[in-house]
Amino acid sequence: MTPALGVCYYPEHWPEEIWARDAARMVDTGLAWVRIGEFAWSRLEPEPDRFDFGWLDRAIDVLADAGLRIVLGTPSATPPRWMLKRFPDMLALDADGHPRRFGARRHYCFSHTGYRDAAARMAEQLGERYGRDSRIAAWQIDNEYGCHDTVLSYSDAARRAFRRWLKARYGTIDALNTAWGTVFWSMDYGSFDDIDLPNQTVTQPNPSHDLAFRRFSSDQVVAFNRAQVDALRARSDAELIHNYMGRVLEFDHFDLGADLDIASWDSYPIGFLSDRLEGDAAHKSAYLQQGDPDMQAFHHDLYRAVGRGRWWVMEQQPGPVNWAPYNPAPLPGMVRLWSWEAIAHGAETVSYFRWRQAPFAQEQMHAGLLTPDDRPTPAMAEARQVADDIARIGPVTQGQSPVALIFDYPSDWAWKVLPQGADFDYFRLSFAAYRACRRAGLNIDILPASTRDFTGYRLILAPGLAHAPGLDDALARSATSVLIGPRSLSVTADLTIPARRPDSAHVTARIDQVESLPPDHARSVKGGGSVRHWMETLSGADEVQIATDTGAPVLTRDGALHYLAGWPDDTLWDRLIRMLCAKQDLPVQTLPDGLRLRQAGDLQVALNYASTETHWNGITLPPAGVAAWRDGKQLL
Amino acid sequence: MTPALGVCYYPEHWPEEIWARDAARMVDTGLAWVRIGEFAWSRLEPEPDRFDFGWLDRAIDVLADAGLRIVLGTPSATPPRWMLKRFPDMLALDADGHPRRFGARRHYCFSHTGYRDAAARMAEQLGERYGRDSRIAAWQIDNEYGCHDTVLSYSDAARRAFRRWLKARYGTIDALNTAWGTVFWSMDYGSFDDIDLPNQTVTQPNPSHDLAFRRFSSDQVVAFNRAQVDALRARSDAELIHNYMGRVLEFDHFDLGADLDIASWDSYPIGFLSDRLEGDAAHKSAYLQQGDPDMQAFHHDLYRAVGRGRWWVMEQQPGPVNWAPYNPAPLPGMVRLWSWEAIAHGAETVSYFRWRQAPFAQEQMHAGLLTPDDRPTPAMAEARQVADDIARIGPVTQGQSPVALIFDYPSDWAWKVLPQGADFDYFRLSFAAYRACRRAGLNIDILPASTRDFTGYRLILAPGLAHAPGLDDALARSATSVLIGPRSLSVTADLTIPARRPDSAHVTARIDQVESLPPDHARSVKGGGSVRHWMETLSGADEVQIATDTGAPVLTRDGALHYLAGWPDDTLWDRLIRMLCAKQDLPVQTLPDGLRLRQAGDLQVALNYASTETHWNGITLPPAGVAAWRDGKQLL
Amino acid sequence: MTPALGVCYYPEHWPEEIWARDAARMVDTGLAWVRIGEFAWSRLEPEPDRFDFGWLDRAIDVLADAGLRIVLGTPSATPPRWMLKRFPDMLALDADGHPRRFGARRHYCFSHTGYRDAAARMAEQLGERYGRDSRIAAWQIDNEYGCHDTVLSYSDAARRAFRRWLKARYGTIDALNTAWGTVFWSMDYGSFDDIDLPNQTVTQPNPSHDLAFRRFSSDQVVAFNRAQVDALRARSDAELIHNYMGRVLEFDHFDLGADLDIASWDSYPIGFLSDRLEGDAAHKSAYLQQGDPDMQAFHHDLYRAVGRGRWWVMEQQPGPVNWAPYNPAPLPGMVRLWSWEAIAHGAETVSYFRWRQAPFAQEQMHAGLLTPDDRPTPAMAEARQVADDIARIGPVTQGQSPVALIFDYPSDWAWKVLPQGADFDYFRLSFAAYRACRRAGLNIDILPASTRDFTGYRLILAPGLAHAPGLDDALARSATSVLIGPRSLSVTADLTIPARRPDSAHVTARIDQVESLPPDHARSVKGGGSVRHWMETLSGADEVQIATDTGAPVLTRDGALHYLAGWPDDTLWDRLIRMLCAKQDLPVQTLPDGLRLRQAGDLQVALNYASTETHWNGITLPPAGVAAWRDGKQLL
Repeated sequence: MTPALGVCYYPEHWPEEIWARDAARMVDTGLAWVRIGEFAWSRLEPEPDRFDFGWLDRAIDVLADAGLRIVLGTPSATPPRWMLKRFPDMLALDADGHPRRFGARRHYCFSHTGYRDAAARMAEQLGERYGRDSRIAAWQIDNEYGCHDTVLSYSDAARRAFRRWLKARYGTIDALNTAWGTVFWSMDYGSFDDIDLPNQTVTQPNPSHDLAFRRFSSDQVVAFNRAQVDALRARSDAELIHNYMGRVLEFDHFDLGADLDIASWDSYPIGFLSDRLEGDAAHKSAYLQQGDPDMQAFHHDLYRAVGRGRWWVMEQQPGPVNWAPYNPAPLPGMVRLWSWEAIAHGAETVSYFRWRQAPFAQEQMHAGLLTPDDRPTPAMAEARQVADDIARIGPVTQGQSPVALIFDYPSDWAWKVLPQGADFDYFRLSFAAYRACRRAGLNIDILPASTRDFTGYRLILAPGLAHAPGLDDALARSATSVLIGPRSLSVTADLTIPARRPDSAHVTARIDQVESLPPDHARSVKGGGSVRHWMETLSGADEVQIATDTGAPVLTRDGALHYLAGWPDDTLWDRLIRMLCAKQDLPVQTLPDGLRLRQAGDLQVALNYASTETHWNGITLPPAGVAAWRDGKQLL
Repeated sequence: MTPALGVCYYPEHWPEEIWARDAARMVDTGLAWVRIGEFAWSRLEPEPDRFDFGWLDRAIDVLADAGLRIVLGTPSATPPRWMLKRFPDMLALDADGHPRRFGARRHYCFSHTGYRDAAARMAEQLGERYGRDSRIAAWQIDNEYGCHDTVLSYSDAARRAFRRWLKARYGTIDALNTAWGTVFWSMDYGSFDDIDLPNQTVTQPNPSHDLAFRRFSSDQVVAFNRAQVDALRARSDAELIHNYMGRVLEFDHFDLGADLDIASWDSYPIGFLSDRLEGDAAHKSAYLQQGDPDMQAFHHDLYRAVGRGRWWVMEQQPGPVNWAPYNPAPLPGMVRLWSWEAIAHGAETVSYFRWRQAPFAQEQMHAGLLTPDDRPTPAMAEARQVADDIARIGPVTQGQSPVALIFDYPSDWAWKVLPQGADFDYFRLSFAAYRACRRAGLNIDILPASTRDFTGYRLILAPGLAHAPGLDDALARSATSVLIGPRSLSVTADLTIPARRPDSAHVTARIDQVESLPPDHARSVKGGGSVRHWMETLSGADEVQIATDTGAPVLTRDGALHYLAGWPDDTLWDRLIRMLCAKQDLPVQTLPDGLRLRQAGDLQVALNYASTETHWNGITLPPAGVAAWRDGKQLL
Repeated sequence: MTPALGVCYYPEHWPEEIWARDAARMVDTGLAWVRIGEFAWSRLEPEPDRFDFGWLDRAIDVLADAGLRIVLGTPSATPPRWMLKRFPDMLALDADGHPRRFGARRHYCFSHTGYRDAAARMAEQLGERYGRDSRIAAWQIDNEYGCHDTVLSYSDAARRAFRRWLKARYGTIDALNTAWGTVFWSMDYGSFDDIDLPNQTVTQPNPSHDLAFRRFSSDQVVAFNRAQVDALRARSDAELIHNYMGRVLEFDHFDLGADLDIASWDSYPIGFLSDRLEGDAAHKSAYLQQGDPDMQAFHHDLYRAVGRGRWWVMEQQPGPVNWAPYNPAPLPGMVRLWSWEAIAHGAETVSYFRWRQAPFAQEQMHAGLLTPDDRPTPAMAEARQVADDIARIGPVTQGQSPVALIFDYPSDWAWKVLPQGADFDYFRLSFAAYRACRRAGLNIDILPASTRDFTGYRLILAPGLAHAPGLDDALARSATSVLIGPRSLSVTADLTIPARRPDSAHVTARIDQVESLPPDHARSVKGGGSVRHWMETLSGADEVQIATDTGAPVLTRDGALHYLAGWPDDTLWDRLIRMLCAKQDLPVQTLPDGLRLRQAGDLQVALNYASTETHWNGITLPPAGVAAWRDGKQLL
């Protein structure tokens, strides 16, 4: 399909008389979509049960009349002040037991059924009024679930719901006691009603308890969302979207996405580089005004999976944001580059956040396509250029990638609960593997751990995958190169140790010992690179392919199934990926620093994240440069 | 006038039989003033309404008989334990909602009117007894408002008072909603009674809300103080003083000072270097035993403004303190040097804290002029030397300085609320400008933002001044060199974005984009120096005077009004100050490291903060050396 | 006596059918002791007053039948969930007032008499059933008092008990007010019932108040323990043990140990290196897989004193642990080396923790002698080797050491309360002195501050000893080299300043001034080394033995009593120890890095903590190597 551009707009922030001019200017910029309404509850229902849809009707008229397609948001991320009077106990509590109060957004506990119902009723109201209105081409339910650490709540509502959830999961309290090993420190429970939330314990709580709470908390987000899904499905055939936030891992996006039609996410490359990405100072400095070259691609691939092929960027950074510790501006050209990275990964729509910088409230320093006084920012021209680029390129398609990376939210929870070493972080491990593939110029598909059919993949990576019964059989059946470990398949669903580790009959190696290592300690590997952070001592391996200088196995092989016993540094990751690709005759690239490729069907796209000119494949790309070819012909 | 010396004394800490000897020794040391009583509530009113002034009467007799003038403190900084029984809710709450309890000092919420009245009644009692006693030459009300982060309180009393304050400020809730842009995240309020304090919100609260709370909190300090002012004015003609703490910015000292006759502050150069001053390790190491060469001068100039010309150092560090992370001793001579820095800036009195080191309680490791067992510390001899110096020098006068620096407490609050970059701190910015002037050997006057007559100034600096309607007209009228920016005049009184930025018809430049930068990132400036931390992209400037290497405007000029688009490093500050002085034919100095000058009327004072000997102007100053000239004749 | 080996075992964690095989394998490994039961309350009393001793009877049968001697634990460290229903207020509160809740262990406040009685009743139950059973050779009461920062509790129970404790200590409130100097900030109390716990104060509480709370808190631990001691003494003649945790300083182990027969502790060398030991990165890196070479020895010597000569290692690290930030594996041989360090210091028993790694709960990643699936880890063979070593060596005896180091828990509390410099830590200071002695190859005895007879010691060290009335007389009488200072004898029992400092008629030097110094600042000492962190200015010293480059006294001497005015670096410590030893003709060694010696009666043991081979005294020790000689004959 031909990708489209869009923008986030807040008619309620601006005088009604400028709406029409704004809409015309959007269209003139080449924007096709406009998202509205997702924070407007207090203007849609200023008092309990007094609705005011008039302004929204008129805004829709104006926008649609200009030719824009509309995504209408349900406003449940911002319950109005009066809601607190109805439900004084609707607030989430943090782990210290402090309420997370009104005055910003997301001040609700997902387990509070009163608020959940109120949110669903608001969705019903919107569905009733606009559900059959063809101008509303899609719905966005809530916004950025989990942003501001809002998934885990330690409220009374959460406690009550957790007990019900546990009863449903375990049936009897004896089963729970056994599954959790509560015998360990006399932690046995006499009834489900004795179980509290796993906060404020004297030292760390039982990992099984903690993981159960995280599973439960994720399920509560899904249930909260589903109430609105049900309300809208009954009243509308338009597509349903949620807008996820990058590197929010506290709920299972695959579970939530299963109820929706399209996944979308917020791409803030510079904000994320500063705020949500580990990395050494040199890397952060080199990409200060460009963002990490792989962080967006990773999320694009992730949300393509979450959306089962259908995904958007709902909020694309257009200039400096307000929420990171430091907020520099993108290099000229980066807004276009980011847009093209998204399109090349299959984004149906790239929507800029936001149309005009707000002159008030929390995000008043967040840039838009326009300044508060209506002057275009550099991003405006870049958006226009992307529209022109799209016109030149036409439809963009997606093929299956040669490489699959399994990404699994519960694995992140498991290792957060039981890191064993301060630096063991599942996202970092997965992302390190992903980056190595990108450095090799490969297309990657991200897959959930529930995948059982791997037809067509030539390399499958599942580092750190905590628990996935049956997956090892499917991987073995795939008869292609597979890499698992470290820590893969090493725990049960309850975060206890299974009878054997790794828990797979296809791996002969056994884990005898596990070490976590401080940052200044590395174990050198024969042939180059080193193991850091994490090292397992293996025995019984069928075939050792890579070992440390002292002979400890690092990579073992059973048929096509490879087990990785430690956490590789980048040099070793590059070796591993190239070695595994070579086994499959899968060609890899050697790319200059900062250059990245993406093959979108028959379209080859090259993007230069470096702040300097780069040369590759006979062409020269300026900083933030984008090139694209189809059938050997350079189009951009 | 001829400066005087004094000391802080606590007769209640010592056996009555040693008071007379102490008093005689004070006089013998050359001390003229003694401050007493400011923490003595529990001894003045041991039980509710049972007063015991006998010991104080006798202490006053002994001290006055020895020839000392007395500053008598009201003891409201230390409400006794029984007060808590009367007002269990008088405690401040911190932002987490935890009470700040009895057991140290300052355990009261400024908004608690019960305690405010009790404090005023104690001031009345003291006023009744001593108000017409000429031996009480001045009153100190409370002590160190705001010390230990005590201005902001999240108590019920504060919440109720805040709602009243908001109603008085905005009139209607619609006006508040509009002013604050509450529409942004459905934060609209239906009534003033719905507004809570801006703590414990899920993410940052609305900046307008937060700033309003800070304005309110400052007003509460002023109101608390005024209750005692009224009590004492009705009963005494002696001068009223408050003793401020360095770098306490949470209330507006100009507002509070307007009700008083004299400003005083606590000068702890070494404690502040360690505890309250940013700076690189090399700087802190170089001045470890001397204190920062400009920190005291800045506060001296600040309190000269707060006191409308009349100010003291009420507490001068005499040796190691107890409260900084590390507490080294002053280099020999520094106590004298600090005293002379104060006198040269116009201090009427320099009072050492404290006479004798206490052998008990929180400050038992804080040095005094005497050890706990009554032996003189090195500071004793230095105080004596200062008294001798003064006898030689005679009266010291103050003239208007050539340079004015506008310092504005609400600007600090605004940028604390909305820093946009982790390193944007108003005090640091103002202090950087101040330091550059000191390095150039200039005298500086600090002025409040309410100043409208700048007659006589040749250079006016107002970096980072958030909001000051009408000031730009006055600056333009001054027809002398003026420097504003970065961020100057960029917000409204409610901390929202005005229709244009900078909000001045006298500046043609417009701010297109704002960037905050991490510490390891600098933008090089043509001609030397760089911009750090903060950079604005300007357009439409009349005349660019300084630009970055890539051509971005750093300093623009409209007539004599200069706009600074970024945060200069020290090299650039030096260039700017010298360039602006050159335009006004204002002579500047090139001083050796650590040497500082102050012109006090016809007295020229030079002070060597370096730990090594320094040479300047034909003379040699040892470490901690002080030199002074009048009419070309060296007096010290 | 001939040392023995043991192991910690949890029959309740494993199927009953494997117990016999486990027991046989223990015996086969050379283990003589097995500790059981200390966390099993929920299995011993599954519901209130319903006891189930059947499984424990059977476990004891199996273990004893195999030939193992049993240490039976009282399970008071892990009150079951139902206990919370009986005593909802039994939880400790942290300093912020948050409850420390059920879900891990140690969730009780030592001051809660209801729980204290319940714990004593459980001890009675166990005593009734097993007290006269000769198979139970010893009792362990509770486990790791103070672990997880559990000594200080801010609960209502603690507040009530503290008031009673204060009344007992001070008699009248006036006496308390005077002792504490409450006059300082109007902190006077009208009655004991007005005194709160010293948390949540606006700034630091009165040091006297804070120290009193710490003394009280230590006494509460002792009283809690004594209730179980009394219960068991009445029912059993078996020896009573508590198992202490390393570097837990919040209660006085000497006080607690006085009620018991044997002291034991937990030796986790690698966990402690990472988690509980200051040190530069190079040191931590060099000993990453070995642990600090002196940390275990210090605790061995400490617990030999606490146990009045009788002590064990109850938990010896056998492989990677789970609770430090990073958890690497011991170098091969270290488990044996650690065992020998303990034996050489007089351990009666070294007991490994634990038999088999648990497959569930908080410590599932903590290694044992067996993996969860029953395969031996490297520690198993090393334990076996230690058993063989012991068979070769036979009985090991202990003589008096030439060096005595006084170690005093209240001194740690005093300097925690009143550090005056961020880096002044009593343990660090004592440990630095201890290390210097170890580097000199010396045997050290640790002594409590209550010691008055120093017969036989040739060097006595008491750095930083806060307060010990009468000790100075005893030290002076000892007529051998004594080193006190810095800060020694500088405060009263109430943490106020005594009439003279140091508070000793035997020291002529007086402290005029005290400085604390930041880490990057050192004062060079003539002849080598420097003073860091802390420096006192002395006057009146009889004889200055060592001075700084600028002539300030660092070490003064009055007869054999030396006063140290600052905190030495390691170089200066080495000089000091060698100088003091030379005065006593006490021979010292110069040892290669990482090599340590211990003389156990006629047995000389050498241990190589280095990760490289080392040479000494004509022999070569590999990494983790142990050598032992008796009568000139090498046995190991």
